[in-house]
Amino acid sequence: MEELKIVKIGGHIINDEDALNTFLDDFSQLDTPKILVHGGGKSASNLAKQVNIEVQMINGRRVTNAETLDIITMVYAGKINKKIVAKLQARNTNAIGFSGADGNSIVAVKRPVKTIDYGFAGDIQKVNTKNLKLLLNHRITPIFCAITHDENGQLLNTNADTIASELAIAFAKEYATELYYCFEKNGVLEDVNNDDSVIETIDTKNYQPLLKDNIIADGMLPKLTNCFHAINHDVEKVHIGTSAILLHKNTTHTTIQK
Amino acid sequence: MEELKIVKIGGHIINDEDALNTFLDDFSQLDTPKILVHGGGKSASNLAKQVNIEVQMINGRRVTNAETLDIITMVYAGKINKKIVAKLQARNTNAIGFSGADGNSIVAVKRPVKTIDYGFAGDIQKVNTKNLKLLLNHRITPIFCAITHDENGQLLNTNADTIASELAIAFAKEYATELYYCFEKNGVLEDVNNDDSVIETIDTKNYQPLLKDNIIADGMLPKLTNCFHAINHDVEKVHIGTSAILLHKNTTHTTIQK
Repeated sequence: MEELKIVKIGGHIINDEDALNTFLDDFSQLDTPKILVHGGGKSASNLAKQVNIEVQMINGRRVTNAETLDIITMVYAGKINKKIVAKLQARNTNAIGFSGADGNSIVAVKRPVKTIDYGFAGDIQKVNTKNLKLLLNHRITPIFCAITHDENGQLLNTNADTIASELAIAFAKEYATELYYCFEKNGVLEDVNNDDSVIETIDTKNYQPLLKDNIIADGMLPKLTNCFHAINHDVEKVHIGTSAILLHKNTTHTTIQK
Repeated sequence: MEELKIVKIGGHIINDEDALNTFLDDFSQLDTPKILVHGGGKSASNLAKQVNIEVQMINGRRVTNAETLDIITMVYAGKINKKIVAKLQARNTNAIGFSGADGNSIVAVKRPVKTIDYGFAGDIQKVNTKNLKLLLNHRITPIFCAITHDENGQLLNTNADTIASELAIAFAKEYATELYYCFEKNGVLEDVNNDDSVIETIDTKNYQPLLKDNIIADGMLPKLTNCFHAINHDVEKVHIGTSAILLHKNTTHTTIQK
């Protein structure tokens, strides 16, 4: 099977022009078919503040009312996505920006209201790989922002980590798929204040103790859930670390295994 | 040759949810390959006002400083483009949103400063049809916002009418290409206050007197320049009118001829 690399970058890389340029230098050198998924960074919250829209977070997830969805769509699908696409073109990577609505590539359902109403937040139901494969076969690189749609005209805000893992799972039957979560740290850290304390392997055995000891907590918890979800659904490799892991296999980082 | 329809919609259609829905109902029923180009509507100016960025216009063209380019990218490529894509998916038209940076499809150069510095305004140099044709052949519909790039990582603000005519010209060698400018009026009007005064045909003969008598002026002037540019470069037909002209050939409107 041909290799496919799916790479997700976090907000700290997007917020920092130098870090973004370094990442895109590395990403553009990957010579396999590849997909990039990006989060939003601080811009969305900054814009929301400027236009006096209050950002409400519950359990680390943004509550997306109609106004917030507009802000997110403008910042993620507009400003950040097009900036990345233009920068990649300058690096000879032929990129096309995507939301889940484009090419009907990621279909989601508005999260049902149980105790919390997350508003226009989308839970992914289906990834349509057909059009994306057409592009990948022609060496075109899809760049996904963290927005999906419901096939009825409604855009939905969806977690970028989840988009990356669901894309990886959807392609795992047809490509030898590797999933990379790139962020500002060297990996999952034993001690969040010590960047040298990288846990090099997380598997089903040491995961439970790490949870119990509160070493994996907060934002890292849903990320790890996405990682295990991918590994348990035929994604070959899942890595967490700085963007150096894309090109330099010996860079210290965290690998998720069964 | 296979037919290709390139349709541009103006700000009044984008600003009015009902008008946009009606247009998209019609557009989605076109059964030839097709491309949509959309302008920006009032949203960009509204957002600029909200975040206290002054919009400067010279000769009906926006002066695009870095902050204004961000606003335009957010509103055109983000909010409006993704809204249209999602609405088309709901109408079973498989759309993918584009700026000129996506797929390296429209390359422009930053307008040289002569007497006026238009800032990050782009003059189109080249349309790359290859990736777009790949999509058209698979019945995918590209939706263009009015943004191009310079291949060096810089996005550029570019007039939507010009994007539509340059796309039409680029495809005219390979498709029987028709160009439609849809807006809120029935066509080019003899009397701007009388919507029944449509000039049904404009050709090289009656164009000069219309210019001289100031009947074609202001915003209509660059539009007509784009129309003649297209007609003189192998585009088969150019029409100006309401979105009804897409499906109903007998609707009163303006046709541009050699």
